[in-house]
Amino acid sequence: MSVGERRPPGAGGNDIRLRGFDDRVTVERALAWVDRHAARLGAVEVGVAESVGRIPATPLAALADYPPVDRAGEDGYAVRSDVTVGASAYNPVLLRIQDAADPLHFGGTALVAAGEALPRGADAILGFDAAQAVGPTVEVIAPVAAGMGVERAGQQLHAGASLASAVRPIRLHEAGLLASLGIDRVSVLARPRVWLAVAGAKPGAGARAAGDAHGPMLRALIERDGGTVEVSETGASVRDAIPRGVGAPGADLVIATGRTGTGPDDEAPLALAEAGELVIHGIALRPGGSSGMGLAGGLPVILLPGDPLACLCAYELFAGRFVRRLGGRDPGLPHATREAEVGRKIVSAVGFVDVCQVRLVAGRVEPIGVAEFGGLASAAGADGFVVVPAALEGYAPGARVTLYTY
Amino acid sequence: MSVGERRPPGAGGNDIRLRGFDDRVTVERALAWVDRHAARLGAVEVGVAESVGRIPATPLAALADYPPVDRAGEDGYAVRSDVTVGASAYNPVLLRIQDAADPLHFGGTALVAAGEALPRGADAILGFDAAQAVGPTVEVIAPVAAGMGVERAGQQLHAGASLASAVRPIRLHEAGLLASLGIDRVSVLARPRVWLAVAGAKPGAGARAAGDAHGPMLRALIERDGGTVEVSETGASVRDAIPRGVGAPGADLVIATGRTGTGPDDEAPLALAEAGELVIHGIALRPGGSSGMGLAGGLPVILLPGDPLACLCAYELFAGRFVRRLGGRDPGLPHATREAEVGRKIVSAVGFVDVCQVRLVAGRVEPIGVAEFGGLASAAGADGFVVVPAALEGYAPGARVTLYTY
Repeated sequence: MSVGERRPPGAGGNDIRLRGFDDRVTVERALAWVDRHAARLGAVEVGVAESVGRIPATPLAALADYPPVDRAGEDGYAVRSDVTVGASAYNPVLLRIQDAADPLHFGGTALVAAGEALPRGADAILGFDAAQAVGPTVEVIAPVAAGMGVERAGQQLHAGASLASAVRPIRLHEAGLLASLGIDRVSVLARPRVWLAVAGAKPGAGARAAGDAHGPMLRALIERDGGTVEVSETGASVRDAIPRGVGAPGADLVIATGRTGTGPDDEAPLALAEAGELVIHGIALRPGGSSGMGLAGGLPVILLPGDPLACLCAYELFAGRFVRRLGGRDPGLPHATREAEVGRKIVSAVGFVDVCQVRLVAGRVEPIGVAEFGGLASAAGADGFVVVPAALEGYAPGARVTLYTY
Repeated sequence: MSVGERRPPGAGGNDIRLRGFDDRVTVERALAWVDRHAARLGAVEVGVAESVGRIPATPLAALADYPPVDRAGEDGYAVRSDVTVGASAYNPVLLRIQDAADPLHFGGTALVAAGEALPRGADAILGFDAAQAVGPTVEVIAPVAAGMGVERAGQQLHAGASLASAVRPIRLHEAGLLASLGIDRVSVLARPRVWLAVAGAKPGAGARAAGDAHGPMLRALIERDGGTVEVSETGASVRDAIPRGVGAPGADLVIATGRTGTGPDDEAPLALAEAGELVIHGIALRPGGSSGMGLAGGLPVILLPGDPLACLCAYELFAGRFVRRLGGRDPGLPHATREAEVGRKIVSAVGFVDVCQVRLVAGRVEPIGVAEFGGLASAAGADGFVVVPAALEGYAPGARVTLYTY
């Protein structure tokens, strides 16, 4: 058993209950396990209206120029610009109104609305400030230069231009563009389907317990990362729920929360070892260090701690990364980041990656609570978090850190 | 008719078709109209799992301390710390295992799991590295200080502490916290319900036209701003659809897109004037200047232009602001902002607020296309946009601007 990444499966080798973790896997090794096992899912077709926020299966490119023809960029009268030379209020040029579908006659003009194709022979649009209809003719009182008011074929897009990249979700105005190009269906990556088993409250905790916090939070986290919760069992025995999830059809990933620690009822790692292989249990992370991961029936299973803040942190680092990778998203933390200066010392333990909830006070970062006991309340009051690498014992005031913002 | 904010209702005064806008309302006045008419909606109760992303009707505060009692912060043995003084591997202290529900006997210890209430009389938790069970007793091989491993009552939250503010959406870990405090239902503001009428394609444009782009985009925009689309009519005659929306039950706002300009078929302003009152039509904004707004049957109606990029910009400034205000959100643009330096001149028209699509090139902002004709493709290729105030004719290279990021 090298650094704990491979314990022999079975209750004996995996049972750290009442003993404690004597070795822990580094966060890097746990991330590497996720990266090795989270294979990008296949493609599905969706309507363009449902494509917002999805990842294209392949980069999307324009099939043709857009607009396909020269067209009016504004409402007005389509003209041959050369006939307007010298026009003024004192010397108006008179043009005869004709149908916009016909090529422009000599001395003719056609009323067009913005977005309509230009009549053949027209090269400019006169706005209504420069051209007013008087019966069957238009009085032009100002000249117009060739090209004015005209949107050229291909001006917005040339054939082959990128419409949406295959590495980030389709943005809403990109979906609008696809729709305006006549694209009805888009091939996007399937949503990762998560089978979620949330351990119920522990007895005697005196309050509603951790388990109740996980359901709403994990569902929102999984959806934020592009996944869907196919089944959510709350309060089920984790020992029963894990094999049930592994055996259920239609899931890409099983996430179980709670019962991962060293207490007598912490049966989740045992259940995974019995159902398949517990590859990692115990990670040098605070909070969230009792997380585990493994495979059962060919399905990846991630065990998250029961403490809500630990669950949140371990989800973000490991389970969320798995979901994001399955769905073809950027596997990194999805939070917006910014550089910030530390205002009050951030304490961390050497050898552990610490996820520290922080608030901004006068633009500087200050820790909330301590890593172990801040609880979800510290995250609820936080502006974001700072990740302290294992090699550091924290950050002194004045240090520059990356703030992951909520 | 002062600066055009109040035209006498009726086809005569409102019909700018084939004439053009001879006066335009400033963006500020249009925003002020939105702010006057968008009243915060009432409250509804939702389950805590559905509260993520919703705005609390009132600030949420903790009703009691959390945790309510001193409890174990980790798995281990609950002890009176003073009995462990002097304990070592050579001189272990032996404690008798008892039930955690009973007050701690002298010389007793109880196994507790993280999150469980501390037995009366206990003041510290010994981890399994310092305490191992041997039959009915526990061998303690290291001393523990009072308070170690204990999460104090109220350590996470004192009664009255803020759980979620009433000005921004409930974050997912806040919902988790609410759930863990035993809160099942949350009073949140109702979702603004939008009746959406999207004008169909114009004939002769040679391609799928603007109207097709609006449905997916506007639905996604409205949902991003916390609203729901109750009815969406695409391709309907705007002249028919506006009165139908105004008469429909259960909408808080009607948004109609298309047919707002100066072309012969631009009937949306007329339809609003006939159904009620067209208060504003024509705004000093590019793109999006043909937008309008008014009231009909007591319901606000916002008219957005048919050009997709103009529609997007006018939605963001006016319709989106209306939706955000109805739902109690920050009415400002919802995009993350950052300061950036202009790399290539941004051209704008004095007297108009210009919304300029830009990309970042080597960290500096460069315009994409021109405000009038960039089309949705310019937004799809953009990293964000810059808003140029009406008083300026643009920004020179080196100027510092606020970038609204996509």
